[in-house]
Amino acid sequence: METHGDAPANAVGQGTGKAAATGHDSIGDWARCSADPHYRAAVLDLLGALAYGELSAFERLAEDAKLAPGLEDKAALAGMAAAEFQHYRLLHDRLAAVDADPTESMRPFVEPLDAFHRMTAPADWLEGLVKAFVGDAIASDFYREVAVRLDDDTRDLVLGVMADTGHAQFAVAKVRAAIEQDPRVGGRLALWGRRLMGEALSQAQRVVAERDALSNLLIGGAEVRGFDLVEVGKMFNRITEAHTKRMAALGLAS
Amino acid sequence: METHGDAPANAVGQGTGKAAATGHDSIGDWARCSADPHYRAAVLDLLGALAYGELSAFERLAEDAKLAPGLEDKAALAGMAAAEFQHYRLLHDRLAAVDADPTESMRPFVEPLDAFHRMTAPADWLEGLVKAFVGDAIASDFYREVAVRLDDDTRDLVLGVMADTGHAQFAVAKVRAAIEQDPRVGGRLALWGRRLMGEALSQAQRVVAERDALSNLLIGGAEVRGFDLVEVGKMFNRITEAHTKRMAALGLAS
Repeated sequence: METHGDAPANAVGQGTGKAAATGHDSIGDWARCSADPHYRAAVLDLLGALAYGELSAFERLAEDAKLAPGLEDKAALAGMAAAEFQHYRLLHDRLAAVDADPTESMRPFVEPLDAFHRMTAPADWLEGLVKAFVGDAIASDFYREVAVRLDDDTRDLVLGVMADTGHAQFAVAKVRAAIEQDPRVGGRLALWGRRLMGEALSQAQRVVAERDALSNLLIGGAEVRGFDLVEVGKMFNRITEAHTKRMAALGLAS
Repeated sequence: METHGDAPANAVGQGTGKAAATGHDSIGDWARCSADPHYRAAVLDLLGALAYGELSAFERLAEDAKLAPGLEDKAALAGMAAAEFQHYRLLHDRLAAVDADPTESMRPFVEPLDAFHRMTAPADWLEGLVKAFVGDAIASDFYREVAVRLDDDTRDLVLGVMADTGHAQFAVAKVRAAIEQDPRVGGRLALWGRRLMGEALSQAQRVVAERDALSNLLIGGAEVRGFDLVEVGKMFNRITEAHTKRMAALGLAS
């Protein structure tokens, strides 16, 4: 696969910088890369998964906000939900702009993502907080890892959407305070964090197994510059390490 | 009550224009008006009611989005919810900026607004659409009516927040199509619209009866320039007429 060291003129700020920082060269812009129908199909899958991920995150955060003990807490989670919806809109509009049907692009990911949320419905407010903080971050890490291998336009979009997360930071102080009050809470939430990671991996595997275009993008294929298996291993190591650090920030063993 | 015909220098665009258009002169800016503690208390009540109204609207629209038959419909209602959250944030930040405790300001309105939503939980997607369209508009009409009597800064904030509604327009085509398919739906939804209006009035009366500061602002008192009773009657007529027109736009008798 041909690579291009020079950032093209239409690449904007952050995306290019981050890609360069992680040592990946530009593979060109969307117009160039999407001429390959396999590449196009893979990116539409990725954007569809991301878009429905944001829409379902909106729905679940809004639902979990009901568990909040007070108005400020409720508003904090509602604010995260509203931010996820703005991301959904960006991704939806991008799919429409490249002549894809957003609903069709999202459809394959509805069931796996709904299943993830069904399996990880928080039993109380603290579980909801941990899920908001940890779940959001795992997804964000994953998409950032993938983004640096994409064409400049898609990469900028994905990194831009992901840069705007981090609304969940308010969760840290709340969870730490709850554990301080009752250390047994820490054991329960540590288990919960492991379950979140496990369910996320399990649904991700299911998606990769079912979607050839997407798995080509991740694992590599003839058509697109994917990860080789060593790189996939390293990527999952990085994501797991970041997860461990976040659990520690919450005062939880991972 | 003293009035000031000249718009003060810090009044921005729209607010002043609308107030002038409806024949109300400026009563001064927030700094001037809020020196009167009764005025200040009334406006904090109003902003608190409005803020919790937006937060609970977010919550209910997000909830009702679950009834959507498809992803695009779900996203349309979720988009309304996200917009309501942005309004909540503006109102919350305004309360904090004038040294009020947003949570305390909202508290008196939690129970009446929750009761409204409890009494008007949609049984299906079409009821949810009618509620989104009609409920949003009744609230918006009411606050616009009140806004023109407020100090310039509060008026600009309230009119600005309300100007950004109208996300519910997508409901019109959907409801009309459903009635065309099955005319009996029209009868049921017409009853539903009347019930929404009835519950809204009933909870509004309860709030006015319980909150002296707010009722002074509406009905008039020694301290603030309220409506006299003739004006209150006219105001409710205007709101009811607008409701009738909106129901007609949906193809429903009101």
